Amino acid sequence: MREVVPPPGSERAKKFRSIIVRTMTTLIMLALFFLIMAGGTPFVVMLVLVCQALVYREVTALFELTAQSGGRPIEGKGAEKSEDRWSKTLNWYFFAVTNYFLYGESLIHYFKHVVFADAWLTPFATNHRFISFMLYMIGFVGFVSNLKRQYLRQQFGLFCWVHMTLFLIVVSSHFIVNNILEGLIWFWVPACLVICNDIFAYVWGMSFGRTPLIQLSPKKTVEGFVGAFFTTLVFAYILGTFSMRFNYMICPGHDLGVTAWDNVECEKNPVFIWRDLPIGEPLVTILSTWARRPVTSIPVAPFQFHSVVLACFASLVAPFGGFFASGFKRAFDIKDFGDSIPGHGGMTDRMDCQFLMGMFTYVYYSTLIRVNHVTPGSILQIIVSSLGPQEQLELYRELTSYLHGRGLLGSS
Amino acid sequence: MREVVPPPGSERAKKFRSIIVRTMTTLIMLALFFLIMAGGTPFVVMLVLVCQALVYREVTALFELTAQSGGRPIEGKGAEKSEDRWSKTLNWYFFAVTNYFLYGESLIHYFKHVVFADAWLTPFATNHRFISFMLYMIGFVGFVSNLKRQYLRQQFGLFCWVHMTLFLIVVSSHFIVNNILEGLIWFWVPACLVICNDIFAYVWGMSFGRTPLIQLSPKKTVEGFVGAFFTTLVFAYILGTFSMRFNYMICPGHDLGVTAWDNVECEKNPVFIWRDLPIGEPLVTILSTWARRPVTSIPVAPFQFHSVVLACFASLVAPFGGFFASGFKRAFDIKDFGDSIPGHGGMTDRMDCQFLMGMFTYVYYSTLIRVNHVTPGSILQIIVSSLGPQEQLELYRELTSYLHGRGLLGSS
Repeated sequence: MREVVPPPGSERAKKFRSIIVRTMTTLIMLALFFLIMAGGTPFVVMLVLVCQALVYREVTALFELTAQSGGRPIEGKGAEKSEDRWSKTLNWYFFAVTNYFLYGESLIHYFKHVVFADAWLTPFATNHRFISFMLYMIGFVGFVSNLKRQYLRQQFGLFCWVHMTLFLIVVSSHFIVNNILEGLIWFWVPACLVICNDIFAYVWGMSFGRTPLIQLSPKKTVEGFVGAFFTTLVFAYILGTFSMRFNYMICPGHDLGVTAWDNVECEKNPVFIWRDLPIGEPLVTILSTWARRPVTSIPVAPFQFHSVVLACFASLVAPFGGFFASGFKRAFDIKDFGDSIPGHGGMTDRMDCQFLMGMFTYVYYSTLIRVNHVTPGSILQIIVSSLGPQEQLELYRELTSYLHGRGLLGSS
Repeated sequence: MREVVPPPGSERAKKFRSIIVRTMTTLIMLALFFLIMAGGTPFVVMLVLVCQALVYREVTALFELTAQSGGRPIEGKGAEKSEDRWSKTLNWYFFAVTNYFLYGESLIHYFKHVVFADAWLTPFATNHRFISFMLYMIGFVGFVSNLKRQYLRQQFGLFCWVHMTLFLIVVSSHFIVNNILEGLIWFWVPACLVICNDIFAYVWGMSFGRTPLIQLSPKKTVEGFVGAFFTTLVFAYILGTFSMRFNYMICPGHDLGVTAWDNVECEKNPVFIWRDLPIGEPLVTILSTWARRPVTSIPVAPFQFHSVVLACFASLVAPFGGFFASGFKRAFDIKDFGDSIPGHGGMTDRMDCQFLMGMFTYVYYSTLIRVNHVTPGSILQIIVSSLGPQEQLELYRELTSYLHGRGLLGSS
């Protein structure tokens, strides 16, 4: 416990100053976030990549800390140095390979028309998994051949740590990037909900917090948790209803040059389409009186509902990502993961819940919302990626004669 | 180091006895393995599941060992007990969820016709990823809410350990099961190659071994490694050529009732089809003289080549799985992972290389060998059944311009 209790007066001043600093950086971060959001898909993807790299650095740096404090006796300063450099290289090698694999998968999936049209890229795309696996195996063999008897526990510990971090951070940010490519709204709304929940847990907790929520972090209170839950639900309804107005938000990010100031058109996912929900008696009277005209139905869009579901996850489950991080910090007796954001600590301290949220959004979206519709474009992708030139020509001739037969093509 | 040096005479006797015991169990295991192979796909899948569960038990049991030896002071015997029981439950819960997720994926992929025909199963199949994710989240929330200040490091260590084990063992045995379902040969040949390599590394090492291969396990020698490599290459060629004669081996395991005594028919993957390779001059004379008839070509099947590639991996890279396990055992000062197989140690000691091999086979097979039965005919069927006339014309135009762009169509 490094906390020192200051005299009461100064404690209050300190608390006040900490609120100011934290609020200022929050506002700056929010402004930056809006700007990046408006800049278009590539900038948002870049943001996620930078965040995950920072988090990865913070978390793996932590391992060296623990190895130094609790590790085995180390023979010779030189050996330690070279060991250190090697383990850093290995960390970043695995990081690079995992990213190569995951973002390759995304690129191949979302940009088939680009990837498979380029003769130079095609072999990388078709053998992507094999290449990634062999790259990983090189790292694995490198790790095993470099095992040193006197460092075994430390080396295996690091290996385990690196894989865990890759799993928790890199895999989930990959899902976040997929969400972005499915349409900015699938990134924007979940991210805002987590931020909203975070802010209001802090606000309600500061204002009314009495009952501690979990043993691990004394600053989290039941009042904050419950208050933030309801606030986030209301916020989700408003934010969802507002955000789905913009095509920029709901169209998939297949065109990378688009910014918030461009006009985008796309076929809307049905969850964004308004429909009239007929309402029953007491409501009819109440609403008709209030609107001063007969009201028998209200306009709703399924996305409003989905937005509220996301809010439930953001305020009931995602905070456990934060508790996980808190427990982790306490296990290693540190206060923050880093000091890159004044008043907030490290990047990890702010991102912990975002990862869980991103994963949930991806799973929720891909299972329950995504429409796999067959379009001319998707069929062309299959033709280009799965058929050889001769087969493509064969299909072309078959299609030509079929369309002729149905009278859809001129007789030329 | 628990090894005690016995007097020279008894050492020899002991070495001899150890060889006998090891050889006997090896033969028994091989016989059992053949029997299970002949019993059909479901038994082979069961074998893999049992092996992975045993390995998982051995590896997670190891964690308790380390926690007891190197852990923090524990307050109260009762707390320790309940903590222990809880961590065991959590281990097996994550194991169950991972298996549910992975085998669900396989079942849905390979048995679509069964899964989607059943009204009761369909919702589980369509929402499979969502259900699995929520089950995992329950475990995660359970883990976080149960974090206890005094056990933090131990709990996070276990969490990391469990995930690592799940990743290395459960995920790779899932790939092995996929191999089995693609056709028994994709399980049989790789597994035999690893066994062959294991046995001959031991035989050559015992007979001629002088130069130690790696610092970590003194029993492994360069002579064993090199000898086993060449033996495995030859063995792969023979085994591959022999195994691909049987339809039982090469047909996908979609019909679960089939055993080795049944007659199976299926469309063969092209890699199993023999073709004539024309040969050049010196070979023509040599082979013609030897066969006493004019020989200008030799019959080859691509699978012979693939089998040799698998052998290269089995003898050059897969052993690193074994070295990894050796290093691991040494890190925790244990001789074997368990004692379930007399003369061999635990299940893990025998399976270590199989996991890597199974993963490689899956990646190699799915990238380079699997035929996605996409034909011009099947695509035309999709076009006719799923697109409207306007969309068909749009596709026709896109295809025309694509083929023009690649120079496959004349300028007309």
